[in-house]
Amino acid sequence: MGKIVTLGEMMLRLSPLGYDRFSQAKQFNAYYGGSEANVSVSLANFGKETSYITKLPANDIAQCAINELRKYGVDTKDIVRGGERIGIYYSEYGESQRPTKFVFDRKGSSMAEAKREDFDWDKIFEGAEWFHCSGITPALSEECTKITFDAVKAAKEKGLTISIDLNFRETLWDKASFSKTIRELLPYCDVALGSIEEAQMALGEKEDEKADCKEILKKFVEKFEMKYATIILRNRFTAENVDWTAVLYDGQTFYNAKKYDIHVIDNIGGGDAFAASLIYAITSGYSTQDIIEFATAGSCLKYSMMGDANLSTVAEVESLMYGDATGKEKR
Amino acid sequence: MGKIVTLGEMMLRLSPLGYDRFSQAKQFNAYYGGSEANVSVSLANFGKETSYITKLPANDIAQCAINELRKYGVDTKDIVRGGERIGIYYSEYGESQRPTKFVFDRKGSSMAEAKREDFDWDKIFEGAEWFHCSGITPALSEECTKITFDAVKAAKEKGLTISIDLNFRETLWDKASFSKTIRELLPYCDVALGSIEEAQMALGEKEDEKADCKEILKKFVEKFEMKYATIILRNRFTAENVDWTAVLYDGQTFYNAKKYDIHVIDNIGGGDAFAASLIYAITSGYSTQDIIEFATAGSCLKYSMMGDANLSTVAEVESLMYGDATGKEKR
Amino acid sequence: MGKIVTLGEMMLRLSPLGYDRFSQAKQFNAYYGGSEANVSVSLANFGKETSYITKLPANDIAQCAINELRKYGVDTKDIVRGGERIGIYYSEYGESQRPTKFVFDRKGSSMAEAKREDFDWDKIFEGAEWFHCSGITPALSEECTKITFDAVKAAKEKGLTISIDLNFRETLWDKASFSKTIRELLPYCDVALGSIEEAQMALGEKEDEKADCKEILKKFVEKFEMKYATIILRNRFTAENVDWTAVLYDGQTFYNAKKYDIHVIDNIGGGDAFAASLIYAITSGYSTQDIIEFATAGSCLKYSMMGDANLSTVAEVESLMYGDATGKEKR
Amino acid sequence: MGKIVTLGEMMLRLSPLGYDRFSQAKQFNAYYGGSEANVSVSLANFGKETSYITKLPANDIAQCAINELRKYGVDTKDIVRGGERIGIYYSEYGESQRPTKFVFDRKGSSMAEAKREDFDWDKIFEGAEWFHCSGITPALSEECTKITFDAVKAAKEKGLTISIDLNFRETLWDKASFSKTIRELLPYCDVALGSIEEAQMALGEKEDEKADCKEILKKFVEKFEMKYATIILRNRFTAENVDWTAVLYDGQTFYNAKKYDIHVIDNIGGGDAFAASLIYAITSGYSTQDIIEFATAGSCLKYSMMGDANLSTVAEVESLMYGDATGKEKR
Amino acid sequence: MGKIVTLGEMMLRLSPLGYDRFSQAKQFNAYYGGSEANVSVSLANFGKETSYITKLPANDIAQCAINELRKYGVDTKDIVRGGERIGIYYSEYGESQRPTKFVFDRKGSSMAEAKREDFDWDKIFEGAEWFHCSGITPALSEECTKITFDAVKAAKEKGLTISIDLNFRETLWDKASFSKTIRELLPYCDVALGSIEEAQMALGEKEDEKADCKEILKKFVEKFEMKYATIILRNRFTAENVDWTAVLYDGQTFYNAKKYDIHVIDNIGGGDAFAASLIYAITSGYSTQDIIEFATAGSCLKYSMMGDANLSTVAEVESLMYGDATGKEKR
Amino acid sequence: MGKIVTLGEMMLRLSPLGYDRFSQAKQFNAYYGGSEANVSVSLANFGKETSYITKLPANDIAQCAINELRKYGVDTKDIVRGGERIGIYYSEYGESQRPTKFVFDRKGSSMAEAKREDFDWDKIFEGAEWFHCSGITPALSEECTKITFDAVKAAKEKGLTISIDLNFRETLWDKASFSKTIRELLPYCDVALGSIEEAQMALGEKEDEKADCKEILKKFVEKFEMKYATIILRNRFTAENVDWTAVLYDGQTFYNAKKYDIHVIDNIGGGDAFAASLIYAITSGYSTQDIIEFATAGSCLKYSMMGDANLSTVAEVESLMYGDATGKEKR
Repeated sequence: MGKIVTLGEMMLRLSPLGYDRFSQAKQFNAYYGGSEANVSVSLANFGKETSYITKLPANDIAQCAINELRKYGVDTKDIVRGGERIGIYYSEYGESQRPTKFVFDRKGSSMAEAKREDFDWDKIFEGAEWFHCSGITPALSEECTKITFDAVKAAKEKGLTISIDLNFRETLWDKASFSKTIRELLPYCDVALGSIEEAQMALGEKEDEKADCKEILKKFVEKFEMKYATIILRNRFTAENVDWTAVLYDGQTFYNAKKYDIHVIDNIGGGDAFAASLIYAITSGYSTQDIIEFATAGSCLKYSMMGDANLSTVAEVESLMYGDATGKEKR
Repeated sequence: MGKIVTLGEMMLRLSPLGYDRFSQAKQFNAYYGGSEANVSVSLANFGKETSYITKLPANDIAQCAINELRKYGVDTKDIVRGGERIGIYYSEYGESQRPTKFVFDRKGSSMAEAKREDFDWDKIFEGAEWFHCSGITPALSEECTKITFDAVKAAKEKGLTISIDLNFRETLWDKASFSKTIRELLPYCDVALGSIEEAQMALGEKEDEKADCKEILKKFVEKFEMKYATIILRNRFTAENVDWTAVLYDGQTFYNAKKYDIHVIDNIGGGDAFAASLIYAITSGYSTQDIIEFATAGSCLKYSMMGDANLSTVAEVESLMYGDATGKEKR
Repeated sequence: MGKIVTLGEMMLRLSPLGYDRFSQAKQFNAYYGGSEANVSVSLANFGKETSYITKLPANDIAQCAINELRKYGVDTKDIVRGGERIGIYYSEYGESQRPTKFVFDRKGSSMAEAKREDFDWDKIFEGAEWFHCSGITPALSEECTKITFDAVKAAKEKGLTISIDLNFRETLWDKASFSKTIRELLPYCDVALGSIEEAQMALGEKEDEKADCKEILKKFVEKFEMKYATIILRNRFTAENVDWTAVLYDGQTFYNAKKYDIHVIDNIGGGDAFAASLIYAITSGYSTQDIIEFATAGSCLKYSMMGDANLSTVAEVESLMYGDATGKEKR
Repeated sequence: MGKIVTLGEMMLRLSPLGYDRFSQAKQFNAYYGGSEANVSVSLANFGKETSYITKLPANDIAQCAINELRKYGVDTKDIVRGGERIGIYYSEYGESQRPTKFVFDRKGSSMAEAKREDFDWDKIFEGAEWFHCSGITPALSEECTKITFDAVKAAKEKGLTISIDLNFRETLWDKASFSKTIRELLPYCDVALGSIEEAQMALGEKEDEKADCKEILKKFVEKFEMKYATIILRNRFTAENVDWTAVLYDGQTFYNAKKYDIHVIDNIGGGDAFAASLIYAITSGYSTQDIIEFATAGSCLKYSMMGDANLSTVAEVESLMYGDATGKEKR
Repeated sequence: MGKIVTLGEMMLRLSPLGYDRFSQAKQFNAYYGGSEANVSVSLANFGKETSYITKLPANDIAQCAINELRKYGVDTKDIVRGGERIGIYYSEYGESQRPTKFVFDRKGSSMAEAKREDFDWDKIFEGAEWFHCSGITPALSEECTKITFDAVKAAKEKGLTISIDLNFRETLWDKASFSKTIRELLPYCDVALGSIEEAQMALGEKEDEKADCKEILKKFVEKFEMKYATIILRNRFTAENVDWTAVLYDGQTFYNAKKYDIHVIDNIGGGDAFAASLIYAITSGYSTQDIIEFATAGSCLKYSMMGDANLSTVAEVESLMYGDATGKEKR
Repeated sequence: MGKIVTLGEMMLRLSPLGYDRFSQAKQFNAYYGGSEANVSVSLANFGKETSYITKLPANDIAQCAINELRKYGVDTKDIVRGGERIGIYYSEYGESQRPTKFVFDRKGSSMAEAKREDFDWDKIFEGAEWFHCSGITPALSEECTKITFDAVKAAKEKGLTISIDLNFRETLWDKASFSKTIRELLPYCDVALGSIEEAQMALGEKEDEKADCKEILKKFVEKFEMKYATIILRNRFTAENVDWTAVLYDGQTFYNAKKYDIHVIDNIGGGDAFAASLIYAITSGYSTQDIIEFATAGSCLKYSMMGDANLSTVAEVESLMYGDATGKEKR
């Protein structure tokens, strides 16, 4: 079985400890992540061979990011080194009625300033079977848009399966630009995931959280000729209480996953965990119903962990997915 | 717009880390607060000019308390230095059925031993528009009772608006003394806040948590000729689960605030946050309904923060007050 | 009043900080506990004289375990020193749908390798009134089975009351061995506690969580001629949400305790806290209804504390048991 | 062999973490100690039976102090509970040219307010062989002076050996008061320790760090009819560099100890460690030269440990005293 | 006496805890500093009125930097808010033969992108008596060079005393640019400080650490018509061992300070502490010899503190300067 | 260039934080290391391809050890999973006259219980150029002795260069067994390192720290027909002060390295860092003098770092080796 390649930007996340607000922080927890890097870490934890592609500066802080990937078994040998800086975002944990707060400082990062010629897709895709990207990378710069298209085209040519997490980021670009670009990207893709609103933007419709999920999925799969499209359904009650489920459409049938009431420990990376679990389940030959159950259960578990990436094993996800979700320990 | 002056005692709070009980603590978190100091810090975070009045010893630990106020922009230049010590209280976080636990060690503090002549109210009230005090300061000593009356009388004379947080503290004095003193203080005040039981004590009635809130408010406003009186309604289910709302009466109409189901991170300073939000909303020209909504939302947010003071901004309170309270982050 | 002697194995627990998974841990919190040691610590916190019996190596780490017992006032002078090592278990806190995870490393511990001649029961039981053991110790080794029987026989002979926590541990032995051994131990015992399944195993029946609790209790008391038998009823919803109650049968009447909805801070030691509270209440002359209420309330409080042992005082348990369980603080 | 009783005041020490100054501290390390309590803890670590006498309030913080003593095996059953508070001192670690800084807040402590009738010396001295006190206790209050005299008189009567650490504390009283009181106490004592200046004050001479140590020792032993008197010689170069040695005089011969160049980790409790090591060596039948070597080596080791008390074992002290002081580990 | 205004860039410093290398860091300590901000903080700790001028983004992280200044009493009301980001530098503590390591990420900061029109020097210098700047600000951008000249010219015009810390930063510009710019700035300045090499660069000479300090000082004062010029002399032996002294020349006499052997806790901000102490001593009317002693002793103390700024009080510096530098505590 | 294979046992090290003694530890720092694993980590940090061979249990804690290796780029794919446990050692940092203290708990570890058939040396040595082992592995068990001989024989056969760190461990076996085994191993080896005493034991002589280093080296190289043998010379003054140098003999000439006065941060892994630096320098074509300089400088740097492994880069070692060892930073 071939390896799964992901492409994206990796950042340093700085978060005050515990429930401290920024102004109370004497220390920051340092996490290294990024939507697609998180997918690779989760896939590696599931035992898959995976390689992450990005550009990072040749300094010690970027090396920490790479070390974090290696620690979990992600292949980092094709990461390009150079440029000025690793992007940063600061995030303060929310709780109860107080929302998670973000301060972004990612401008001028090595990846945002990367050039098309930095990446040798032939070499990168050697031995690969799957390519995963997201709507974040094309938003980083015009050149990054081109890099993303280079990647999907090369992947297509080599016969890889291509998945995309729609991932609209309002701090990076406007909805119109997202909509235009994503619509050009999707025809290269086989598998997609996102929220209702993101799917609507991709379809060129006005986004509406209350819209009918299945109708949108259907339009989406038909328009972009997807093999599988999934929509994640999340209701947020307070900063730490959400419910979480998803629907998958394979062009013929709708598959609904169980719904989980989640107590959130760290609300970053839920979608990435979903993407990784989805890719794992598809590439491991699960039944279609089990694909969406595994994706939902795997990402549900992410919310109970600190940091950006899902550190679950397959056994843990299956135990939740086939079990009773009550967290009973063994001793 | 003039500044808002508050008067009170500031203490060092020592709390074991996380959920540790006192006997498990190897370290204590150090917080510096006090009911009225917390009001000033919150007002400063709302962008108001505010000055805090107290007496603190001339040592490094008291300097830490002052630094904490300065950090958030509170004017500390009128704080009197001298006396023996800063009061201390130890508090252990409760959780589930285990209540928060307090050990008080505030006797002999500089403020408790302060003298009337320590405070020059003419100088203190220069440029002031509002004076806020609470039922704690008169409880510290007979001299502190006099200091409180000196302050409200001077404030009255200078035409300041005066607010009071009833704040009965059973470890400092008995209900009869509280009742007697507070009843003499209230005629100087324009705005008051407290619980049903405190309002009843002020009215000289037997306290009863189940009493009709509006009836008491009405009596209260009439008896003490208040501009606004508010009663905070809190139901506590476990150490970390409370609900929280308030009613305001302006002598004509009752205004009910939204009710919040709160997951408590730190249950100290909710009333102080309410007082600060109330004063902010009144001095900023909000509608009467919005005054009580702002006060309730602002204090609701306090419960999600560590430490004694509300660190919310006006934008954060308004986002909760006009929004959906689900803590959705932006990125 | 005589002292309460407990016998068991004490271990070092290593837990990642906060919600970190093992692979994220840079530090481990170190707790020293063991089912019966936890009983002694809780009894000492209730003001009872108590002595703990075990074998621990003559090294600094085992000394830490002993220091932890002494800190809370447990008599440790009869602990035997020698052998190779203190057993270890690693535990990772679960949350939401992610269960608590254990890695055991207790093989070859000083207690597991202890010999019958290590313990001088005549000396140990001097001045004792009560002996408490559990189903864990006989599971450690064949010799430990004999040690347990030596202890209960000596205790019986000296007229001590004997209590037992059934405590089946699936990582130590199989159900058949447990069933056989426990059935031989129970005739020596006056008081027993356990889950429905454990009671069924003791009775030689097929375990079934949904079985009728009272029916089993009745059979249990009759078969083993118990003074009191109690069954703990716990429903687990997620890793941190459980409900908790218990039933006591004295051969004549069933006594039901209040049920508590618990937010779990640390889910280790709930049963041990129950045992200690039960022993305390019986030896302190509470009414039978109050015995089961005290046992349930005392163990409910344990879940709100870090570490293996219940650090509650009698006043705290009574406040919950007679009060309203809403965790209201005093100040 | 009988137990060693010590009498004194126990305090909570609050120290910023690491090299933080007070104004940078978000947490304080909590240590519980006191000159004579430290002596008892060290004696218990040396395997001696020892009991500590003081008065502490009946609250959770004082309980922590007692727990700390119990943890190391000190008998605490004769500690009187009552009064208002446990005294506090804040200390900031110095380094290089920046000195350790203290803020004292011990006024009104339970011990300072204790009454003579709080202590039943007959009961306290049951089974005792040695009584140790210091010049701090009589400085706490006039009543505490009387309590100290009650203790030494009762000890004398019962034939106990009495040791005293001169321990002049300039923040508690002036030199004249110290001088007068200590001169009246010393005739009851058999063993004394202190600095050159303290010995001079005791002799009623002008203190002078450069005075001839042996001359003073000789005068001291003759005047107060001591069995052993020792003077600790310490040169301080920076906050963390000191050298440390001592001289003992038994009325006939001067015994000089080895000198140690110490890198100080925590400079509190060096003298207390010396007192404990001295008492241990005398009561264990060491040769006179070894008594002073053990006392000096034992206290040297204290400087390498955090907290107020020496946690060394006899084996560790002997290894230093007979060895080469290079800290070579075994593995 | 008027206030002391400083101008510069403030950054977030992220340092691994303790001796961890970057790759071992799970947390970073967050310090907010900058050469001239550190001068203001130190001056405020000395009791001087001081105002800091910079441009910082309107986000929460920049607010933390401002809060840090306010905490110590620095006037921050003239800080301009806007732009993209606060600059960052990562620093790893060195020890023994391992040097302190820096990773800079300051490009695109609000100050580096500031415009001349951001600063209203008339308003800024109201009530000021002294202006302090350094060689770092003109290195940030061409516009920042102009801003620095605007400031010194305005200061000159208003009759302020002007001091400059030469502060060559090799990561910001080359020696030729530094040399050219600093030579044009110096004629506006009254007081200067720097190393021998920096003074040589300013004089247009080839830098040489072994050059004759006095000769260079003489040339420097004559060429730039300085009132006082000082050269700091530092020998570095390992990462934590340095010696530290300075020479001052007032155009007539050379004044040598005592030399200190320093154990370095944090080697950032020594020069800034020197500048602040120098300004304090000059503006407080010390004798010329005492000016250089105070500057040297004040900065010596900085090395014993964590963070970028000197938190010493005047009493602490004088105690070292007039005392024996052995760090003896009082208790 | 081929990869460097190392074989050994990896353990979990648990160390109290800072200067805490075991009895004060509430947390332990967790480090994962082992003599030969440390060699691999250091080699990976130097940019060499390296693979580590051991047996570890199939549990989460062992996975942490593997993750630590992967983090730094060590190839872990040939690590055998199985057996009962990962060995543990507890170590308490010494300081001043207090030595580092160890408690070992490694019995029954997966590696100690490993079987010869667990390792497929043909597969392991594919693409390898160098094999490194130490005197620890054969000490673990008789089977481990055989495994070590299997490894060196296979390596010899395949033409790999073989290096050995003599590494006598007195807690694992006696000197006679070490001597006998090591003497049989050495003929297979090309490069050796150790202390004078270890070399003497290998030669079958009585060990003597003061013996003539060169004489022993000469005998050693001649007897075992070594290409290079090196002796590390370390003087230990206190727990944190050592000096450190080494001599290399290539059968013709003695090469002496610079001597370093080291302030020790963590004294574990110095020899392993030496071995890694030695192997790096030899395989990178350094001159013989530079080989011993690089080995000494590389290992000197290790002492300034927390944890078991040297995290230095080649640039850092060269900077020390060719530079002035004063730790001057760049900024």
